[in-house]
Amino acid sequence: MATFKITLAYDGTGFVGWQRQASGTSIQGLLEDALSDLDGRPVTVVGAGRTDAGVHALGQVAAFSLDREIGAEVLVRAVNARLPPAVRIVAAAEAPAGFHPRFSACAKTYRYRIWNGEAISPFERHYAWHVTGDLDVERMAGAARLVEGRHDFAVFQASGSETQTTDREVFSSRLGRVSPELIQYEIRGDGFLRHMVRTIVGTLVEIGRARRPVMWIDDVLASRDRARAGVTAPAAGLFLTRVDYPGLLADRT
Amino acid sequence: MATFKITLAYDGTGFVGWQRQASGTSIQGLLEDALSDLDGRPVTVVGAGRTDAGVHALGQVAAFSLDREIGAEVLVRAVNARLPPAVRIVAAAEAPAGFHPRFSACAKTYRYRIWNGEAISPFERHYAWHVTGDLDVERMAGAARLVEGRHDFAVFQASGSETQTTDREVFSSRLGRVSPELIQYEIRGDGFLRHMVRTIVGTLVEIGRARRPVMWIDDVLASRDRARAGVTAPAAGLFLTRVDYPGLLADRT
Repeated sequence: MATFKITLAYDGTGFVGWQRQASGTSIQGLLEDALSDLDGRPVTVVGAGRTDAGVHALGQVAAFSLDREIGAEVLVRAVNARLPPAVRIVAAAEAPAGFHPRFSACAKTYRYRIWNGEAISPFERHYAWHVTGDLDVERMAGAARLVEGRHDFAVFQASGSETQTTDREVFSSRLGRVSPELIQYEIRGDGFLRHMVRTIVGTLVEIGRARRPVMWIDDVLASRDRARAGVTAPAAGLFLTRVDYPGLLADRT
Repeated sequence: MATFKITLAYDGTGFVGWQRQASGTSIQGLLEDALSDLDGRPVTVVGAGRTDAGVHALGQVAAFSLDREIGAEVLVRAVNARLPPAVRIVAAAEAPAGFHPRFSACAKTYRYRIWNGEAISPFERHYAWHVTGDLDVERMAGAARLVEGRHDFAVFQASGSETQTTDREVFSSRLGRVSPELIQYEIRGDGFLRHMVRTIVGTLVEIGRARRPVMWIDDVLASRDRARAGVTAPAAGLFLTRVDYPGLLADRT
């Protein structure tokens, strides 16, 4: 019995999200079905982040154990052959002892893409939030930096969420224009509450529209009142790009 | 009655191609339906290139006449509101007198994308040809250059096509690696036969696999025998990126 750590990319369009649900197709469900078929017995897959419906991944991490003796390279091919092309294993290795995709992670990075132009490119319709009208990117970038550090992020949490603590540390929070029409936000932190990235983005867009001063984001954070933050930005613009682990648990590949 | 020239982008995935067919959804059909609805009478749309099923466009050009008085900017919004997000008008202007999207064109540019890696990114599955195994990009680039100039391209034409002449001039034909896994081919010419770009790409891939010498493409061209060329590369990798018109007919925008 060997435990594997895999890195996954997926186009979240049309899926119910990472986690297996009563109905609809989930990434976890697709993987568990493919691996159970391969191993000839039920296999459980644990993921690093529970991405919501429509959220994408470039570097989701997951782990599972197999009875069957199989090399990492053969595993990648066998599982990819059993998955739809919207979900791909991009790397696999035997997991270090004690490895847990969620509890072992020391940082996660998310990217959010905003299309700021009259008509959204057909090729971006599932991968960006279409925001029309002028956005002041300088102001948004300034507000984004204010999110860095350790804060109580309760205000940016999906309503109804229950978590033990809402304190999180954000290592970096940067926003910039990458092309005339595309604004990109990247945030790296030790953990994220449900909808946290999308609500921060909704709040940054409020500031970008000059409806609110840059410092408003500090007031919002301090208020701990969800009603004060911006809207939750749509799932389509969000990508889980990377999950980091401490050196001892790093990839052997 | 005013005639408009529009520039279009579309994600060709799932469409039967540019041209209206007996069944299935075509880009031309979607546009004609949207414009007929707007103008309150049947409107015919003429396109610069008849892209096949699954082929994409970043800069397709089309023209049509409307009875209704309408400014270009309002037109773009009104039509985009009536189109699915997979098809967007990106620019519109009143057409110069005598403008015809196909007959007035002096050059077209196509792009073809090849994903050359073990697993294809989920985000590329509809936008690139997945070719596994080693490809010698230097050899492919060399062979691509040999396509430049005026030639009889009959050998690269879809079998069963009937055209008056199969002579075409290729102004430039360049191939290169744009990232470790992505190879991009760009060809600009005065006109293209059906499947011409895709068959050239299929032939370049044969050469890239080192199954054929670089100069083989000259023999293939000279042979005028379709059976000697490479396979027709899949539609998904192909983009009509640009249509050029002589100065007098250029965009007023």
